[in-house]
Amino acid sequence: MLFFTQCFGAVLDLIHLRFQHYKAKRVFSAAGQLVCVVNPTHSLKYAPTLCAAAQTSTGQGILPPYHHHEAVHDPQLVPCMCPLFSCPWEGHLEVVVSHLRQTHHINILQGAEIVFLATDMHLPAPTDWIIMHSCLGHQFLLVLRKQEKYEGHPQFFATMMLIGTPTQADNFTYRLELNRNQRRLKWEATPRSVLECVDSVISDGDCLVLNTSLAQLFSDNGSLAIGIAITTSKVHNSEAEM
Amino acid sequence: MLFFTQCFGAVLDLIHLRFQHYKAKRVFSAAGQLVCVVNPTHSLKYAPTLCAAAQTSTGQGILPPYHHHEAVHDPQLVPCMCPLFSCPWEGHLEVVVSHLRQTHHINILQGAEIVFLATDMHLPAPTDWIIMHSCLGHQFLLVLRKQEKYEGHPQFFATMMLIGTPTQADNFTYRLELNRNQRRLKWEATPRSVLECVDSVISDGDCLVLNTSLAQLFSDNGSLAIGIAITTSKVHNSEAEM
Repeated sequence: MLFFTQCFGAVLDLIHLRFQHYKAKRVFSAAGQLVCVVNPTHSLKYAPTLCAAAQTSTGQGILPPYHHHEAVHDPQLVPCMCPLFSCPWEGHLEVVVSHLRQTHHINILQGAEIVFLATDMHLPAPTDWIIMHSCLGHQFLLVLRKQEKYEGHPQFFATMMLIGTPTQADNFTYRLELNRNQRRLKWEATPRSVLECVDSVISDGDCLVLNTSLAQLFSDNGSLAIGIAITTSKVHNSEAEM
Repeated sequence: MLFFTQCFGAVLDLIHLRFQHYKAKRVFSAAGQLVCVVNPTHSLKYAPTLCAAAQTSTGQGILPPYHHHEAVHDPQLVPCMCPLFSCPWEGHLEVVVSHLRQTHHINILQGAEIVFLATDMHLPAPTDWIIMHSCLGHQFLLVLRKQEKYEGHPQFFATMMLIGTPTQADNFTYRLELNRNQRRLKWEATPRSVLECVDSVISDGDCLVLNTSLAQLFSDNGSLAIGIAITTSKVHNSEAEM
């Protein structure tokens, strides 16, 4: 009897997954774009200063005892880009991608234009949605974070980081686009290098910032679709193009 | 002697204004667009619920004693769109433009694409920057507001309202664009009608929202340039266009 109950549960799960997949495909199939459904990563133990600590060796974050930041730090060493995991890993740029894939099972997508579909936007802060994006011969990391900068007022922050040096990052422009309910919001900027730390980009607010009500307007059934495009930089002629 | 001192002061003022004007022209002349330098409007007496009171007749704002909102309210009556002035005026849609021009000296600009140059962004909240924009046979009101939704954290909110009915407003799309320092932020939406109240649009956050650090990145010498374009609405095909 238990076996049949379990089977029935599994079938229900499959139907649900199939429905979710169909829904995602239905929404974006018209554009013929690659859609990646990204599930959230939630952790009660939040260590926002992990990366700052790695950069300055004077961070006040709660670091695991085996995280030897007191030692002289190699500036080319990147701490793990999943701060919510409180992962003590550090490594050189060349091995960041394999660490993120193997240890944290972060998906990697190919293509110049993709759609990032973040599910369960209602989950409490802090929550991260992360994917890697392989494009133009480089790997980028898209981080969407729900965080309470002001207590009781969660906001969403989205940014793109190049898994490379700041000089390499200057060669690219990324675009994040939200489009729903007769509203469109576009953010274009030069990606930061993962050496610069995602936490400081978000705390500076130098990224796409959404308050909860705007995130709800752009969401469909608790999922937020963000169109992503990466191009090689042209010279920004700020004034002439306005 | 006093006369000469005053003359000297006036000459200095003229030089300063000429410099400001030249600076604005220099920045945008390449695009051949109309630039409107908009000075802020600051008031210590802030009555954010003025409009809500006008809509519901149950507002709790500090209203002047001669503001008879207890009476049955004509839904087509628009309270004055300059809440910071605490102006008790109310009138029908047809006379809103002349009231704003004559009583509050709000500029009106012609053209499908203009640049709104808000000066003195550093002024403390609450502060408003307002212009009217005449385009496609209608008048629109652009409101940029600096407000502290969360105490100690001022934010900037920009929205466009049609001086017309909600049905008329549905025929248009407005775009606000910031472009500087290798960053670009675009907001596109259907304008709201002035009958709907600018305060509620801003408190809902259903507009372009900028935190202070992002506003600084987009500013030049304390002035923020916002490119404005208005078009007649096409059917928004949210998914296909992403």
